[in-house]
This record gives sequence, C-alpha cells and structure tokens, in this order.
Amino acid sequence: MSQFQPTERTQVKRLPKRGHYDRETVYKILDTGFVCHAGFNVDGQPFVIPTNYGRSGDTLYLHGSAASRMLKTLSAGVPVCVTVTHVDGIVLARSAFHHSVNYRSAVILGTARLVEDPAEKMEALRIFTEHVMKGRWDDVRQPTEQELKATTVLALPLEEVSAKVRTGGPIDDEADYTLPVWAGVLPLETVVREPIPDAQRKGDPPVPDYLKNYSR
Amino acid sequence: MSQFQPTERTQVKRLPKRGHYDRETVYKILDTGFVCHAGFNVDGQPFVIPTNYGRSGDTLYLHGSAASRMLKTLSAGVPVCVTVTHVDGIVLARSAFHHSVNYRSAVILGTARLVEDPAEKMEALRIFTEHVMKGRWDDVRQPTEQELKATTVLALPLEEVSAKVRTGGPIDDEADYTLPVWAGVLPLETVVREPIPDAQRKGDPPVPDYLKNYSR
Repeated sequence: MSQFQPTERTQVKRLPKRGHYDRETVYKILDTGFVCHAGFNVDGQPFVIPTNYGRSGDTLYLHGSAASRMLKTLSAGVPVCVTVTHVDGIVLARSAFHHSVNYRSAVILGTARLVEDPAEKMEALRIFTEHVMKGRWDDVRQPTEQELKATTVLALPLEEVSAKVRTGGPIDDEADYTLPVWAGVLPLETVVREPIPDAQRKGDPPVPDYLKNYSR
Repeated sequence: MSQFQPTERTQVKRLPKRGHYDRETVYKILDTGFVCHAGFNVDGQPFVIPTNYGRSGDTLYLHGSAASRMLKTLSAGVPVCVTVTHVDGIVLARSAFHHSVNYRSAVILGTARLVEDPAEKMEALRIFTEHVMKGRWDDVRQPTEQELKATTVLALPLEEVSAKVRTGGPIDDEADYTLPVWAGVLPLETVVREPIPDAQRKGDPPVPDYLKNYSR
C-alpha cells in the first residue's frame, strides 16, 4: 500500500488540499530531518520535547537515556504524537492577512513500543546513526552492552500518519494585486558548513567522504 | 527579574548544565525563530502542530483561522506546551553512544488566553508580522474588521519557561580518543536565499530594504 489510511484524527480538515497521505511524501519529510518534536502528557500537562529519530520502513525509532522523563513516560505505552517540520520560506502577501509560511510537516499519532530485544535494539541504534549520517556506523566504536543498557529505544509504528505541505507564492485578494507592495517568497534553507574538527583530537584521520558530501 | 523561576515541571533534570532560565537566553531563542511546535490534547491524544508565533515582552502570541481545531481547542483554556528549537550542528563522537546534536530550545508551559479586545488583537497581529519580518507591517494592507473576526489570537504568558542549550564538540570516553575516527561538529545553519517575486505581480515595487537585509 502506497497510502496511509487517513483517520478522523489525521485527516487534514482546514485547507485539505495541503494534506498528503502517501508514503512517498511522508518518508521524504521524515528522511530529510533527524530532529522531531515528541508530545506526551505528564499528569495532564502536555510536554513537547525535541529529540532525535531514525526511520526504517514503517517504524520510527526514538531513543535516549534510560533516566530521561520522556523515555520513562513513553516506555509505559502512552499516546504520543511525533511531528517533523521543515520550514522552506516566508510567503509575503500584499495584505497582512494572507502572509503564510511554506513548509512540509509530518504528524504521527500512536503508542510507542519499548524495544527490549538486544539485537533489535542494536539494529535501531545503527538505524539512528545512519539516519543522521549515512556511512557513520561502520566508522565508529559501536555500543557496548553497558551502553545498550543505558539507552532506552522506542519503536513507533507509522500507521496513523499525515503530512501537510504548502508551496508556492502568496494568494492575495483580487483587489490587492494592484497595491504597491512587494510580494513573493523569501526562501529559507538549512545548509551545512565546514566540519569543525574536535580540539582534543589525537590521531584523527582526515574528513571522511560521507561527511564531505553531506547534505539533507 | 531577569530569571524565570524554575518549577518542578520546567527544571532540567537530565544534564542540568544544559538548563537555562534567564530571560536573555529564552528571548533570544524565541526571537531567532518564528515557527513553534504547540502541544495540546484532544480526547486524551496529544497533538503537536507547527505554527507561527510572535513575542512581545513576556507574552507569546499564537494565531490562526477561527475554524482550526488547534485554535478552537486552545481557546477553551486547556494546558498547552509551546516549544521552539534551533538545530545548530551534528556532534560526531568516536563512539556511536556519544553522538549528539548541538541545539537551543525553549519550552513554555501554561494556558493560553483568548484575545478578544479588538485593539489588543490588532496589536498582536502587528507583533506577529513584525516578528516574522521587521518593517513589513507598515508596508502591507492591514487587517479589515472581517479578517480580524476570522482570526483567533491567543496569548500565552511566559511564566513557566525553560531553555536547553548544547554547544561545543564531542565528549568521548577517555579510551576512545586514540581511535582512528574523525570527530568534531558538522555545523548546520538556516540561510536566506534570493527573494522570489510573485509571478502574478502587477505594479510591485523593488525588493524593500528590510527584505534585502533579512537575517535571523
């Protein structure tokens, strides 16, 4: 199936043209980023915490210290919402009212499962590292048993998912097009700067190719 | 007072050195961005939705269509969490375990107030527009009475607030420093590209100075 089934909770109601439910669009939004915002409740208060993620097929992995409040809360199997957003530009209309933002976002609703099997946990950590930087895993010292134990890994199935995308220029009221106001889009982009070597390096090799050619 | 008072809910417990409660740090994180992630509950399910904001003193304004689920939910006076995050770089350690991300984030907990007074509402819309692009408000057609009515504005007081910041290079285990692995930081930055004029322009003036010199 190339489409996620929209539900009452994920169907985009406002501006439904912006809603997307196909795996291709959702995967691309998820794979372009590596920091999501995870939402969960503690005593009825919602918390929204930025955290890393990795994707493999229809599973999104979250991880963190076994001591973290977020990981402890989510390990208990409570409802979670994970959102990934890319801001692509500021849309400048001729009226204040029609100003907007170009963006791509994916929203995942569900309940995360605690990953307990050591082999699946190790594989999830590989997926994490490779999601952030393809090629890195084989280069670094891999987790010890103790490090694995200190890390909580959660798996969130991609089942109840929607994406929302706005592209293009401003849509003004007909009467406003003749106003003497500059209108259009100011594009924003995330770029990679020169890698900064660790000041404490001893025998570090030169910058690896996967880092030199890094882009998202 | 230059500091927000940490509470049981905002005190950074994991890696407390990363926690900041001073207004200067929090304001700077909020003023560098203009898209936040707002978390709220609908029937016990958390939703995390990207949305625009503006700040004036110790008030964060949110807005949107009066028809939106998020605005309708939040107008009812329910607990909300608003988080703003900037990702500054990927921290590459010699072990998979010590990989990290450099970031600045601010988390605001509270209950938003529906702004009903038309003068305050208009002022909030000015703050919005100026927060996204300083100088823009005086240039554009300002909201009509009907547009004001179609817009819901919420005010969230900055009271229960914390910031979390990670900077600098990787911290590896002592024994790992001699491993032949490149370590350091890959800096990420959001940049502004050339403005794209609206294809439907008629008598638009040249690119205004506030747009030419735009940075965040």
